[in-house]
Amino acid sequence: MIYYLGPEGSYSHEAALLIDSEPVAVTSIKDVFQKSIAHRGIVPWENSLEGSVSETLDLLLETKLSVVGELTLDICHCLLGNKKAKIVYSHPQAIGQCREYLYKHNLEAIAVTSTAQGVVEAKKRDALAIGSQQAAKTYNLPIIDRCIQDRNDNSTRFAILGEVIPKATGIDKTSIIFATFNDKPGALYQILEIFAKEEINLTRIESRPTKRFLGEYLFHVDLEGHIKDSKIDSVLKEVAKRTSFLKILGSYPQWPKQCQNQS
Amino acid sequence: MIYYLGPEGSYSHEAALLIDSEPVAVTSIKDVFQKSIAHRGIVPWENSLEGSVSETLDLLLETKLSVVGELTLDICHCLLGNKKAKIVYSHPQAIGQCREYLYKHNLEAIAVTSTAQGVVEAKKRDALAIGSQQAAKTYNLPIIDRCIQDRNDNSTRFAILGEVIPKATGIDKTSIIFATFNDKPGALYQILEIFAKEEINLTRIESRPTKRFLGEYLFHVDLEGHIKDSKIDSVLKEVAKRTSFLKILGSYPQWPKQCQNQS
Repeated sequence: MIYYLGPEGSYSHEAALLIDSEPVAVTSIKDVFQKSIAHRGIVPWENSLEGSVSETLDLLLETKLSVVGELTLDICHCLLGNKKAKIVYSHPQAIGQCREYLYKHNLEAIAVTSTAQGVVEAKKRDALAIGSQQAAKTYNLPIIDRCIQDRNDNSTRFAILGEVIPKATGIDKTSIIFATFNDKPGALYQILEIFAKEEINLTRIESRPTKRFLGEYLFHVDLEGHIKDSKIDSVLKEVAKRTSFLKILGSYPQWPKQCQNQS
Repeated sequence: MIYYLGPEGSYSHEAALLIDSEPVAVTSIKDVFQKSIAHRGIVPWENSLEGSVSETLDLLLETKLSVVGELTLDICHCLLGNKKAKIVYSHPQAIGQCREYLYKHNLEAIAVTSTAQGVVEAKKRDALAIGSQQAAKTYNLPIIDRCIQDRNDNSTRFAILGEVIPKATGIDKTSIIFATFNDKPGALYQILEIFAKEEINLTRIESRPTKRFLGEYLFHVDLEGHIKDSKIDSVLKEVAKRTSFLKILGSYPQWPKQCQNQS
């Protein structure tokens, strides 16, 4: 069983369907984390246009669950609903991704909890929504315009949550969160040096405020390799010594899998 | 003349009032950038809880204006309006900053373009809003609860936009944006090394997607010093050689000014 951020027709739903034929919708990212204990969950993690999903980053810091997988979904935002309306309902990230289009067409955006919820609101209020083609079909609304996002290379990466870290496949990633000792980004250099010396490739680095003071950061880092690899294990022990906080979120097979690239 | 993200009663308004007694409201961050040519503008830049304001980061990349100042404002979010209502109108960042409170009190959030706009909507619809004490006064709405943000150390840093970079004061910051050559965060290490060797302190580092592909980043960095300092000048020339893209946003006096700290 896998939980996702509903309602039906959301991009999370599309992503969840790729790994489970009967995913279960819940109403918030926080609920996905809470319900996924003893099951699995899927949450949006980062988008190629808008960057990381801050709520997911914050909850990853607190959760006892591990990241056991990743999944990347290409996004095509459609404008749905009443073409004479001037109000658009959608999720804040979808609004952000279509900012130029909305500005150019003088449309006012109202943010709701998911793209699918926006479609429901648009239907109820005879207004517009930004959503997937699947959402248009599910809620029976006309598509006014397709792929209205500011950039065409729009994809969202999801994290799959679970309790058991999968075994190494040879093509894996490991996700960690750490804080530097002296709370200054300058200290980041000394941590990156540990990875650079061992030629461990970092595929993502995100700084996040610690929620205490401006200028104090946590770093969310993804690296190539599995925590069961001896090199990764020893490097992470070294990182633990030189950081004030280190959390290993999990290791999981890279997406797309190498076999798909080779086909 | 200084432009800010209105309407009146927004936190941007509070910030703008600290540097100009008659600031002028516009309806979007994009408009602040457009109107500020030949004048000045003030835009929210980063928040201690939510991180950077993505629209501002994107517009800083494109603008011909410089960052000529910074300003940090402490934020106390109040819950305003009808205490029996269950719908809260506010700006997405304010909603994000009060996520735990809203979740605990089972309140549904609807995002609008500013906190003050949320107060207007709450008044019109007999609902709730998250806003400043000033907004409650301006719009004559009762305060239901004070300082409802998830963390108490909640402050927002603003960028002041203008055309002329101020002279060095001796206690300055410089803001830059760069992209690494091989589009991998690993390359960041080699850039940070340039600053580390010259003992230049970085006060902020933010990675942002390039809006092309997941895993490709621009780095927004603030450092201590002024571009007219010879050390900063030579280091930035070295950074330019080793990056595929470098934009110097500006140099400006640090906030709070040293003289305020000493008083």
